[in-house]
Amino acid sequence: MTCVLAVPGNELHAQQLAERLGVSPCPVELRRFPDGEIYVRVDGDLAGQEVALVGSLLGGGDSFLTIAFLAGTARDLGATSVGLVAPYLAYMRQDAQFHPGEGVTARYVGRLMSQVVDWLVTVDPHLHRLDALERVYSIPTTIARSAPAIASYVRSQVEHPVLVGPDAESVQWVSAVAESCGAPYTVLEKTRRGDRDVSITAPETAWNGHTPVLIDDIVSTGKTMIEATRQLRAAGSAAPLCIAIHAVFADALEAELLSAGARGIVTCDTVPHTTNRICIADSIASAVRARLG
Amino acid sequence: MTCVLAVPGNELHAQQLAERLGVSPCPVELRRFPDGEIYVRVDGDLAGQEVALVGSLLGGGDSFLTIAFLAGTARDLGATSVGLVAPYLAYMRQDAQFHPGEGVTARYVGRLMSQVVDWLVTVDPHLHRLDALERVYSIPTTIARSAPAIASYVRSQVEHPVLVGPDAESVQWVSAVAESCGAPYTVLEKTRRGDRDVSITAPETAWNGHTPVLIDDIVSTGKTMIEATRQLRAAGSAAPLCIAIHAVFADALEAELLSAGARGIVTCDTVPHTTNRICIADSIASAVRARLG
Repeated sequence: MTCVLAVPGNELHAQQLAERLGVSPCPVELRRFPDGEIYVRVDGDLAGQEVALVGSLLGGGDSFLTIAFLAGTARDLGATSVGLVAPYLAYMRQDAQFHPGEGVTARYVGRLMSQVVDWLVTVDPHLHRLDALERVYSIPTTIARSAPAIASYVRSQVEHPVLVGPDAESVQWVSAVAESCGAPYTVLEKTRRGDRDVSITAPETAWNGHTPVLIDDIVSTGKTMIEATRQLRAAGSAAPLCIAIHAVFADALEAELLSAGARGIVTCDTVPHTTNRICIADSIASAVRARLG
Repeated sequence: MTCVLAVPGNELHAQQLAERLGVSPCPVELRRFPDGEIYVRVDGDLAGQEVALVGSLLGGGDSFLTIAFLAGTARDLGATSVGLVAPYLAYMRQDAQFHPGEGVTARYVGRLMSQVVDWLVTVDPHLHRLDALERVYSIPTTIARSAPAIASYVRSQVEHPVLVGPDAESVQWVSAVAESCGAPYTVLEKTRRGDRDVSITAPETAWNGHTPVLIDDIVSTGKTMIEATRQLRAAGSAAPLCIAIHAVFADALEAELLSAGARGIVTCDTVPHTTNRICIADSIASAVRARLG
């Protein structure tokens, strides 16, 4: 039997997964002692169960410890295995030492998490220099793909789309969506001078009545999307629709993108945000079913 | 050779330890990516060095991951061993399942931390039902004792002290300080009805011109200290001096204690606080020297 546990804050994803697996999520209590220590309690009989723990690994806050505590609790309660379903998986970007003395946090988190859970399902992790999760996670992993859900959204909302990646890293998402849509794609050229400082070059393109759809995996400061939008408009395109898989950005970005000339921004629902329009629950459920074997 | 690294926020303790070991702390950089991910960099040659990483494990925030990242970085840079010097060690209180389904976070943190560092030095951890750090940490540990420094402070500030513990758990600290001072001690009786709800009974005592010195290891909400102060005053004592080893409380507590009838509150400097008066650096340095062998 399978039991679905929500890391507090991830109740919607847990509910969506539980429905698709035909079970009910098991209630979880999280509170804090006066000095900030996390307290967790699981209200259910986990003995002999396979547990799917649903919770994103976020960059800040205590999400790693919360996941570790719930996994430990599930094991103490007799769970036979504990897997993590992380709609968003932080700590994939610092995957090498770019300057002497830097910590390679992707590797440290992968090692720790591999000691905490038995398997991992996540949605389109930021694989760039690392070509596979196995480079840092030693447990079995499955990637749930957002491309089918994004392609379905694009087909329903945009006539004659051209998929556009703001930089070389984005080609993997853009080409997958383009293929699902049966649409062409192109990729812009990005130069990064810091976390918040990028320049982008749009190629000479004849749009011929097509609407650009900009796609990136993680949008945080949004500088890349804004600059890509500006360059597309300067090159004579229609207002691009911007799509992010993981909405790690502040609400204010939407207005900035509109004033840069975008048609708007919509996101997959891996990270809760007002711009969430694309539900990836089906893809997650398929990946989890394959993991539970 | 030994290298001292400060987990950012713990620079003072690192400096005090480095001075006592006759070395200079190695600079550490910590910043955050826009989505909250921690970035660390160590500026020094750690090849072949024994590293003492100085940083408290706090209840909230990202202190566990920060410690794990710096330990991983030190190893990547060639450190032969990495130990943690944690002036304050959170996650010692939830050391058993008090209600069904509760996570035993002391055990989970002990296990994780034992995979991250090779040894641990901490100041008077909250050992209550657990009688030793070895119950949850599988690495070598040394406890640095605050009693000598507290006793020295009490001797210099209080004529005819009587050491008083607010509850049975505090007898270990109170008896050690009393012995160092050559002063008598007594322990009050506490009934706890929740994190923030306690009642305390003071015994019939003839104070005969002695001044009570209330000592507890961790003061967080301060309810125990306030209630103990009230009961001592109601029993006719002089205004007690309150001493906490770990100041995990808000500034406002000092005024509350004064209005409850205390002479004031002073603390050891394990957790930075305006009430810090008692430096435990010598005790920490002795414990680290023993660990470095």
